[in-house]
Amino acid sequence: MHGTVVMKFGGTSVADAERIRRAAERIVAKREQGLRVVAVLSARGKTTDELIAWAQEISPHPDPREMDMLLSTGERQSCALCAMAINDLGHRAISLTGSQAGIVTDTSHTKARILEVRADRIRQGLDDGAIVLVAGFQGVSTAHDVTTLGRGGSDTTAVALAAAVGADECEIYTDVAGVFSADPRIVPGARKLGMVSFEEMLEMSASGAGVLQLRSVEYARNHGVRIHCRSSFDDAAGTVVVGEDVTVEHPLITAVTHSTGEARVTLLGVPDTPGIAGRLTTALAEANVNVDMIVQNEPVSEGQRADMSFTVPRDELQQAHAALEPLVGEFGIGSIRSDEAMGKVSVVGAGMKTHPGVAAKVFTVLGDEGINIHMISTSPIRISCVIPGEHVPGAVRALHGAFELSGPDTIRPEQPFGEFQS
Amino acid sequence: MHGTVVMKFGGTSVADAERIRRAAERIVAKREQGLRVVAVLSARGKTTDELIAWAQEISPHPDPREMDMLLSTGERQSCALCAMAINDLGHRAISLTGSQAGIVTDTSHTKARILEVRADRIRQGLDDGAIVLVAGFQGVSTAHDVTTLGRGGSDTTAVALAAAVGADECEIYTDVAGVFSADPRIVPGARKLGMVSFEEMLEMSASGAGVLQLRSVEYARNHGVRIHCRSSFDDAAGTVVVGEDVTVEHPLITAVTHSTGEARVTLLGVPDTPGIAGRLTTALAEANVNVDMIVQNEPVSEGQRADMSFTVPRDELQQAHAALEPLVGEFGIGSIRSDEAMGKVSVVGAGMKTHPGVAAKVFTVLGDEGINIHMISTSPIRISCVIPGEHVPGAVRALHGAFELSGPDTIRPEQPFGEFQS
Repeated sequence: MHGTVVMKFGGTSVADAERIRRAAERIVAKREQGLRVVAVLSARGKTTDELIAWAQEISPHPDPREMDMLLSTGERQSCALCAMAINDLGHRAISLTGSQAGIVTDTSHTKARILEVRADRIRQGLDDGAIVLVAGFQGVSTAHDVTTLGRGGSDTTAVALAAAVGADECEIYTDVAGVFSADPRIVPGARKLGMVSFEEMLEMSASGAGVLQLRSVEYARNHGVRIHCRSSFDDAAGTVVVGEDVTVEHPLITAVTHSTGEARVTLLGVPDTPGIAGRLTTALAEANVNVDMIVQNEPVSEGQRADMSFTVPRDELQQAHAALEPLVGEFGIGSIRSDEAMGKVSVVGAGMKTHPGVAAKVFTVLGDEGINIHMISTSPIRISCVIPGEHVPGAVRALHGAFELSGPDTIRPEQPFGEFQS
Repeated sequence: MHGTVVMKFGGTSVADAERIRRAAERIVAKREQGLRVVAVLSARGKTTDELIAWAQEISPHPDPREMDMLLSTGERQSCALCAMAINDLGHRAISLTGSQAGIVTDTSHTKARILEVRADRIRQGLDDGAIVLVAGFQGVSTAHDVTTLGRGGSDTTAVALAAAVGADECEIYTDVAGVFSADPRIVPGARKLGMVSFEEMLEMSASGAGVLQLRSVEYARNHGVRIHCRSSFDDAAGTVVVGEDVTVEHPLITAVTHSTGEARVTLLGVPDTPGIAGRLTTALAEANVNVDMIVQNEPVSEGQRADMSFTVPRDELQQAHAALEPLVGEFGIGSIRSDEAMGKVSVVGAGMKTHPGVAAKVFTVLGDEGINIHMISTSPIRISCVIPGEHVPGAVRALHGAFELSGPDTIRPEQPFGEFQS
């Protein structure tokens, strides 16, 4: 008995008939190696963006339940089309919706979390000798409604199915050759990483590396799923994401990541009353706003007021304001300010844990570039700085150079980078 | 407690954001009259045709199960978008897939038949005060796969739901003002019919009137569902389809219908052996070919061979040939010929039952026009003639005039006619 593999294809990998056929051929080739194959597909190319545009044409704030009903159709179309292509290659394929595949989620529409995978129907299909295609990015809620898992959710679908069926590997096929030491669009000399640990990948995904959805990496770490992130356009090995015990090297710095989609919200004159910070962040969480960094300056003396800043994804700024405004009056907060043009640059590396001085070097490098650091946050293996958005490319290049991350395995310039997909 | 109504909107009635909003307003207006509202929506405009084109780009003969997975997405999109629009109007709407709505079908993919409607979830939604939107044209098979009901299947969805929830009326909103005495594109003086019987409507749908799917009329007759077929662009009453006991008048001829999408297949030299006709038609049925008329000329004497002709929809001609060819060899049939350019003209009228001489008048009128009749079939309330496709418009006009079907209630010339929708 051979093993089982889960293969996930992103939106650009199934963008048109020709690419769908190529994905079908890759899937069939695996099957012909004797493997049991589950493939997870994203929506074709820009389908999800088009569906979102339709919804916005109808309604300024589309109902989230209905948004999920709408958005979930794109992946179903990809799967059905790919199944047709596989059937034409002489293999039997069946496509399943997230619901049919047994992906049970909570009821947080547009950002649902997987609670359970009831993979009986997938196992039945595999036992019958079929290739099983599963629509990514979606599930069925405990209230029996269609849900979606948020941008990049197909990665999480793939990892969750890999865990559920006990796959040997979860292959993520994408339009980049793997995970790089920096975005090659910004740093042409960026190096493809052969292997990274879950912990590093988590920090990289959380700080802007678009290649894998953060939640998929968390899920993989929690369930011990080996991820292989690779190009759908050639057969070269990509980047393997594995447990820290498996990785052989612990470089000081593995990669420089960045994000340009940040907004900063500052609350001026927050009364020094216990519990206010909790109420504010609870209000943001209830509005489904993902707060990243939070910085509060202590009032100088008893009874004075504090200022509090935090960063949110720029496209959630409006919700953040809407959630906070009622509390401004309630608590007598001075005012709210926001800055939409913020970016973030981070250095990530497992070796950082045992090497002090990395933070100092980061700040020095940015200072030498004349870049003003607005906020700082750190983890044992990451240092992130919020900086003005316009300085992000220069900061990435400066840090990548200063930590000498370039290597022989660089990306070919004709290859695109940075697929963000459902 | 007010009653329940089912409203069905065809593809052109939800073709863009503006029309979806208009449909939403119509739905809300009914709700504000105090009615419980279930709305069935088709896919937007040309969506189904586009999806079919995608499939054909991938595969010459797409797998039917996968075709259904693909095609069922269009109606889901319409429903989600319309639910968003209704929510913006201050009413609560939930969209349901065919499966969620409890539409259980057999496993005949792309042409499934409804076996049962388990409307509990719809009733729950109505009891909660919500407007329930259901994706038309689709269901879930007894094998738990997504199925579709064939072209025009949304009409059947609407009628089946009307029966299941005990609706007072099933309103079919379309881009024509109702059912006409002939296609107004061909006969500008055609009259809108105020009321027709199920039997007449069945014959009209079966013989080419595109306004209602045949199966939906059968279902309505079998379950006593009153259908109101009307324009989605104005508030004028359309055509009501009811039981024969309810109709007040039994005109000699109600309408002239036609079809130009016919093909004729002729088997020359069929041996005069019992059972051959059965084997041939069984082969066609197994290939899912809808045979319409069948004509066999008796052999002149014992042991001679017969010729057999039948008509099929032109787009099923290839399947018909494929199904018959193995039998040509097996039975020693002389040859197969086919003619793709055939049409059919029919006169339908409940009064025909008690008035002999209608057939003679039809043949005389066509003869006077110099139109050659290739095949004839009749029912108690219908006479159909297969004629060359190019003569169809002239034949319709001649028959409409000869039976004096024009009336005061004629269509406005700017109004389009002939939506054929999912």
